[in-house]
Amino acid sequence: MNEKNFKLVEGIISRSYVSQAQQASRQRENLLTELLAQRRLPEEGWDDYTIQCVLRDLSQMDSNNFIENVGVGDREARVYSSIVRDRHFGLAHGLGRSGDLLAEQPKAAGSSLISKLAHYLVKDILKTSGLTTVKSCLIVPMATTMTIALVLMSLRQKKPEARFVLFPRMDQKACFKSIYAAGLTPIVIPNVLQDDEIRTDLEELERVIAERGSDQILAVLSTTSCFAPRAPDRIIEIAIQCAKWDIGHVINNAYGLQSTRCSHLIVESSRLGRVDAFVQSTDKNLLVPVGGAIVAACSSQGESILREISQLYPGRASVSPLLDVFITALSMGSSGYKSLLRERKEMFEFCKNKMREVMEKYGEKVLDTPNNPFSMAVTLRNYCIEGSATHIGSKLFTRFVSGVRVVDGKSSKTINGVTFEGYESHIDRYPHPYFTISCTIGITKEDIEGFIERLDKDSQPN
Amino acid sequence: MNEKNFKLVEGIISRSYVSQAQQASRQRENLLTELLAQRRLPEEGWDDYTIQCVLRDLSQMDSNNFIENVGVGDREARVYSSIVRDRHFGLAHGLGRSGDLLAEQPKAAGSSLISKLAHYLVKDILKTSGLTTVKSCLIVPMATTMTIALVLMSLRQKKPEARFVLFPRMDQKACFKSIYAAGLTPIVIPNVLQDDEIRTDLEELERVIAERGSDQILAVLSTTSCFAPRAPDRIIEIAIQCAKWDIGHVINNAYGLQSTRCSHLIVESSRLGRVDAFVQSTDKNLLVPVGGAIVAACSSQGESILREISQLYPGRASVSPLLDVFITALSMGSSGYKSLLRERKEMFEFCKNKMREVMEKYGEKVLDTPNNPFSMAVTLRNYCIEGSATHIGSKLFTRFVSGVRVVDGKSSKTINGVTFEGYESHIDRYPHPYFTISCTIGITKEDIEGFIERLDKDSQPN
Amino acid sequence: MNEKNFKLVEGIISRSYVSQAQQASRQRENLLTELLAQRRLPEEGWDDYTIQCVLRDLSQMDSNNFIENVGVGDREARVYSSIVRDRHFGLAHGLGRSGDLLAEQPKAAGSSLISKLAHYLVKDILKTSGLTTVKSCLIVPMATTMTIALVLMSLRQKKPEARFVLFPRMDQKACFKSIYAAGLTPIVIPNVLQDDEIRTDLEELERVIAERGSDQILAVLSTTSCFAPRAPDRIIEIAIQCAKWDIGHVINNAYGLQSTRCSHLIVESSRLGRVDAFVQSTDKNLLVPVGGAIVAACSSQGESILREISQLYPGRASVSPLLDVFITALSMGSSGYKSLLRERKEMFEFCKNKMREVMEKYGEKVLDTPNNPFSMAVTLRNYCIEGSATHIGSKLFTRFVSGVRVVDGKSSKTINGVTFEGYESHIDRYPHPYFTISCTIGITKEDIEGFIERLDKDSQPN
Amino acid sequence: MNEKNFKLVEGIISRSYVSQAQQASRQRENLLTELLAQRRLPEEGWDDYTIQCVLRDLSQMDSNNFIENVGVGDREARVYSSIVRDRHFGLAHGLGRSGDLLAEQPKAAGSSLISKLAHYLVKDILKTSGLTTVKSCLIVPMATTMTIALVLMSLRQKKPEARFVLFPRMDQKACFKSIYAAGLTPIVIPNVLQDDEIRTDLEELERVIAERGSDQILAVLSTTSCFAPRAPDRIIEIAIQCAKWDIGHVINNAYGLQSTRCSHLIVESSRLGRVDAFVQSTDKNLLVPVGGAIVAACSSQGESILREISQLYPGRASVSPLLDVFITALSMGSSGYKSLLRERKEMFEFCKNKMREVMEKYGEKVLDTPNNPFSMAVTLRNYCIEGSATHIGSKLFTRFVSGVRVVDGKSSKTINGVTFEGYESHIDRYPHPYFTISCTIGITKEDIEGFIERLDKDSQPN
Repeated sequence: MNEKNFKLVEGIISRSYVSQAQQASRQRENLLTELLAQRRLPEEGWDDYTIQCVLRDLSQMDSNNFIENVGVGDREARVYSSIVRDRHFGLAHGLGRSGDLLAEQPKAAGSSLISKLAHYLVKDILKTSGLTTVKSCLIVPMATTMTIALVLMSLRQKKPEARFVLFPRMDQKACFKSIYAAGLTPIVIPNVLQDDEIRTDLEELERVIAERGSDQILAVLSTTSCFAPRAPDRIIEIAIQCAKWDIGHVINNAYGLQSTRCSHLIVESSRLGRVDAFVQSTDKNLLVPVGGAIVAACSSQGESILREISQLYPGRASVSPLLDVFITALSMGSSGYKSLLRERKEMFEFCKNKMREVMEKYGEKVLDTPNNPFSMAVTLRNYCIEGSATHIGSKLFTRFVSGVRVVDGKSSKTINGVTFEGYESHIDRYPHPYFTISCTIGITKEDIEGFIERLDKDSQPN
Repeated sequence: MNEKNFKLVEGIISRSYVSQAQQASRQRENLLTELLAQRRLPEEGWDDYTIQCVLRDLSQMDSNNFIENVGVGDREARVYSSIVRDRHFGLAHGLGRSGDLLAEQPKAAGSSLISKLAHYLVKDILKTSGLTTVKSCLIVPMATTMTIALVLMSLRQKKPEARFVLFPRMDQKACFKSIYAAGLTPIVIPNVLQDDEIRTDLEELERVIAERGSDQILAVLSTTSCFAPRAPDRIIEIAIQCAKWDIGHVINNAYGLQSTRCSHLIVESSRLGRVDAFVQSTDKNLLVPVGGAIVAACSSQGESILREISQLYPGRASVSPLLDVFITALSMGSSGYKSLLRERKEMFEFCKNKMREVMEKYGEKVLDTPNNPFSMAVTLRNYCIEGSATHIGSKLFTRFVSGVRVVDGKSSKTINGVTFEGYESHIDRYPHPYFTISCTIGITKEDIEGFIERLDKDSQPN
Repeated sequence: MNEKNFKLVEGIISRSYVSQAQQASRQRENLLTELLAQRRLPEEGWDDYTIQCVLRDLSQMDSNNFIENVGVGDREARVYSSIVRDRHFGLAHGLGRSGDLLAEQPKAAGSSLISKLAHYLVKDILKTSGLTTVKSCLIVPMATTMTIALVLMSLRQKKPEARFVLFPRMDQKACFKSIYAAGLTPIVIPNVLQDDEIRTDLEELERVIAERGSDQILAVLSTTSCFAPRAPDRIIEIAIQCAKWDIGHVINNAYGLQSTRCSHLIVESSRLGRVDAFVQSTDKNLLVPVGGAIVAACSSQGESILREISQLYPGRASVSPLLDVFITALSMGSSGYKSLLRERKEMFEFCKNKMREVMEKYGEKVLDTPNNPFSMAVTLRNYCIEGSATHIGSKLFTRFVSGVRVVDGKSSKTINGVTFEGYESHIDRYPHPYFTISCTIGITKEDIEGFIERLDKDSQPN
Repeated sequence: MNEKNFKLVEGIISRSYVSQAQQASRQRENLLTELLAQRRLPEEGWDDYTIQCVLRDLSQMDSNNFIENVGVGDREARVYSSIVRDRHFGLAHGLGRSGDLLAEQPKAAGSSLISKLAHYLVKDILKTSGLTTVKSCLIVPMATTMTIALVLMSLRQKKPEARFVLFPRMDQKACFKSIYAAGLTPIVIPNVLQDDEIRTDLEELERVIAERGSDQILAVLSTTSCFAPRAPDRIIEIAIQCAKWDIGHVINNAYGLQSTRCSHLIVESSRLGRVDAFVQSTDKNLLVPVGGAIVAACSSQGESILREISQLYPGRASVSPLLDVFITALSMGSSGYKSLLRERKEMFEFCKNKMREVMEKYGEKVLDTPNNPFSMAVTLRNYCIEGSATHIGSKLFTRFVSGVRVVDGKSSKTINGVTFEGYESHIDRYPHPYFTISCTIGITKEDIEGFIERLDKDSQPN
């Protein structure tokens, strides 16, 4: 309530109560003041009530919410359903303008402001995650892999003749397809096995570059977060190669933000070699619904790439994924986000120990994958469930465990004409079948205990 | 409530009241039954209450909402903020899977079902709009123009050597840029003036095709909905040419769904010539927040293009824009949507008459643009506001009128190296300055009267 | 958003957009300014968005919503469930203090303000309903009839020896019981039949007063709104008698606010005779959920009675019913409320005509009850449904028609020792059976047509 | 979703996903099944999502939410504002019928069911609080003290000649006034000082009974929860006296449910003597907004009194306070409620220790009040804040500490003609000034630490 209205209230109820209320009201307003002035994560997360107040304040700045507004344009952000209007807090104009995702909209000062603030908050989140040298970031309302396609398309504009993208093998369809979506051709670089762990074959990578010629190669698309027994790619060494050969380097850091180790690898890669941009999912890292990605860069060169990407997306985009991030960042605060990161790490260790304990009873081994901070894999030599080893994923799913993947290494798959032997293994032939799981942000002790219990129940050595 | 629970309730309150309530509960369930069985718009729109009940029922089908679910995958749709969770009704898994926007998600039966149903409803909406021969449609959670880029990228996969897209001039930046976003090169086809109206130059179009060679040309990108005095493109004739020369044809039908005349043009174009796909905005046509587009096709060939487009988008996408469409379609119902279409048409006539009445006082003329069913333009020879003719748009904006565009035809603009003389005129030199407005779906009598009043107030002949 | 925050926003997005938004934000704030300054119904109803903003602003004034608040009292308005907190907009301290419903609460300036404003708005609603001379009103979070008991208890404090309340017969249990709830003894005054209509027997009333002695009689409890063929009591004449004999007069105006004719009767009664207070339901008149009543008075004496009533209720009361009234009053606005009154009247006439049309087919008559503006009754001589006349109420209820009451005049009922012959007839013996219905505020043409149709369907002359 | 609809869904998405979802949907339905079958607190609290689903299911059972309903009665539960409708989940018919708060409503099976279930849950809560022998309870949508008045009015119906209520002095205005609200006359029984603690004077009580004669005395109104240094009344001994003299006994157990010690006292009082009913607040004990009270009894006789009370309230009452209790009980579950009780007890000890630690620095003493489990009092001999001892309550309030009461024992107050010396001390003359605070359910460590810190800051010995 503004000063004038508070004054009028004093004519209705006792001045001293009003003055107390006014002071309290200012304290809440000061949270917004701090956000606008400092433009970073609040130390403590805001309560839902404050967030809702601020969202209402900001959405009031969009013209479709002006009480006197009349609209005679082609796009006036009229919303038919009150369910829809309410769920978007009256924000309807979307993001960006005239082919620039970051451009302000004259009709939507509130949405524009939310976009700016969300970008500040996300930059702070990236730093908190260990990406201390991050220069710039861009929130894109598209899937991580579609965003990777956009990054590649942007790179291509500078090196239009280069058709190839080198792809250290990572058996995920969407990521592989993003290269085609950008109108480019992938060259898969097979991995190598080091003890239990699957790692990037740097020699093969360099060999292919030399063979094809660096002017034919647009970029390397490397990966950090992945399922064990694959390890994150050796991105520092890749970055050094890319710098050496003047080749682009895009890192798929899908859910890597959750681990300061991944962040450290990216910082070092950017410092010692070339990283054009790295892309991460909003849903997997920030606990929002699927729908957005964050492109970021640690170099000044990367900064200009981000600007280009924002100008490559023609038209207005949904503000919804960015809004989820904005709300969540304010709700977490810096300390809340740090707790989540710490807890995830603890849960990973907790899970690994529990897993060892239980699966050794069945003569199984938790594979030794020291470089993968998210995921663990367990051999499937004896263990089975309801008489089947290969179907334990679906069996567990009917017991309401989601996320277990069984890999027998025997199937092959062809995507856009490229055949992957031992699909899902990230390598043609892995020594044994296994199942793999992940401990990602937000996982709880109850999740892990519930999983281990259902894993153990009714199961027997084969 | 299920039968068993109703039975138990009979032990607590009188059987006859319970039986009445159970019957009423079934009536509401029957609305869903009808939707699932008939898969088209309900005749009458559903009340918000029913919609919310159904959304809850469907979101309960997603694994993250199962009460016994434990998740050990990389993506478990955990949502941190309850504000965020509530605004998405607990739907968090997004759309699509493994690089197919239409693929079902095992973890998200509810979201998958909403997606299927939304597609059925949108197809019915298209038919109701007059697109009676529509074969297939695809809801894409991206801007209209980004979606056009996706369509062009999809076409290019079949004709990889064709680099050019013919673009009958339409001065909207995002649309023009969509061609670049697809990695292609536009060739602008200048328009011609016919009396007051700006129209497609079909001869020039054919001349360019012949000159460049049809194998160099991927597609024509034509436009239906646009600002007067430009008329919708002559898409029937363009379609015939495209068929003749075996060139793709994509129609930007941005807000064309609102006019059965546009729909008729598309139906005829598809019947007599070639139309690969036409793209429209969800926000402009269906009164939802910015964020989505609909690609549709009337031909079997188009149907297969749509499938390819859905497989071109790698990764999972936000379900949010599609959800808005789903809610809105159920809320409108067939009769509600028809009323909106009818009222828009009436308002367009009402506005044109009012405009003539008022602006003739200032010696201005409402331009004669019989082919544009959305927009009208008024000369600016004498009329000015606060002493300025060119700034009447911004002046009116400060009076809370949004959407008025003043075009003086004197500015030129260069986008991606291409220069447009008389930018915003759609033609190098239009005889006089004018302003242009639109009457789009959802516009009310109050909007028009409010606009006319503020237009008239404080203004004077120059 | 406050000035300081708007200033900071100018460092983030363009000043001109911010300034426009600030101006629009002020327009919305001005609605509240107007309410605080004028303290009456807004001419036009507020949109839901504005109402929600204001509710948030006001609830921020309660100490439990202060972000820095710590509480060490016995009542700190902590709320466990966020569902509960949200549905009350964070308002948790209730109404009143130390045995005064109207007292301000130091911990709850916001709730106190809402209470004051709601009282201003309700006073304005009463005036709009035709109660032009109303002096004072009190919103009580209890049933109408419990509130009547409270009024009687309050009157008794001034005339402690008077034990009797005269009650012109009105066959509604709760109302009759309210006399007992106040610890008093009713004397039922039988009605008389005038043509089809049942009316107050003024002579019998005066006879009883004379017989018992006016010092034994605390008050007359009269009724305006009731089911046809009973008419509103002759309250003007009763008021004159009460003045003459120095007896209290309380009017049960349950749903009488909907008819300016009832209001007129009350105004005249207050002018020409004695009316201590009149009581009406919030739910029946203002379309809110059941839970509150309004006591009002047109005389200065009544004003002081209202103060006493507010001090008679010990303890804090639920703010919830008052909050519903506050929201609804702002949402209706003066013009919205007037429309509702007008439409109800039109619907009453519409229904009566339709009813005549249909029921005459069955040889039935709409009873001639010119003094009842809400309700109508129809004879049941031939008409029956599924072979039964007496059960048409329950039959229609299973066809989802609620509110039809069949009165066969044959049953008698004993309440607290008093026997009513021909219970529900308001008279011992009504000439024929009939059914009675009401057209109350908010009724729609669809209601009436739906009712008439189901009444007509499958029915036949007996 | 019902079986039929799930079947239809199988025609749209894969059967195996549907079957999984159906199974999960049943798990949620089973929570309701369990509630309906067992009619007690769930062991674990329900998540908000489940509660909202159940509320929707139940509100669908009320006729105003039937989609085909047409209403022609005087009360059709139409709700004007969608804000209002939504906040009550569409429940609008209120509680009770024809002067019985517990009666089922034909038009509102859902509301009726909620009422029944809420009563079962509250009974279970009472048991969990230690009231193991509770026979019956009644949730009343009125203030605790108004409810006490209702209980007294109900008792009076059986002993109409008894005018007096004995009231062991408790300096709270609303409670004292409740006796007058019931039309009765209080006789205050002064307390005695035992060391630091203020206790019931049993001898004086018996003396007054003997003096007045037990047939003149309707009841004793005793108190459990109160501010230190007053202790809970000696209710066991009072109950024995009441049994001996055949006098009613009503216990004001305002916030006593929070302490198993109070519950134990009530159980023993009921076992060894006479307790007609005990009354407690819903807001103070169950963390809901102000608005309701619970009357309960451990004896069969009490059970019949409760039935009478429910029939004494004429008319329909707001369901809102009961609904808050229903939601909160489901949200807490048995284990959640037990945790709250345990934590409160711990916080009380924590606070007492902290208080001693800090206030001894100022030479103050935490008074020795071993019988009061909620509240503690601290002498004010030296401590002052901003130069004032008497105003530390208001000073702390401006520092956002609510609930501190300073008692200097010097003021006297006259209520309804009765003068209390040393008002707020519960005794004419307490040896020293003090302040008193409470640790009630929901209090957190942050509250206590925040309070102690602000108490200590800027303060100095006098």
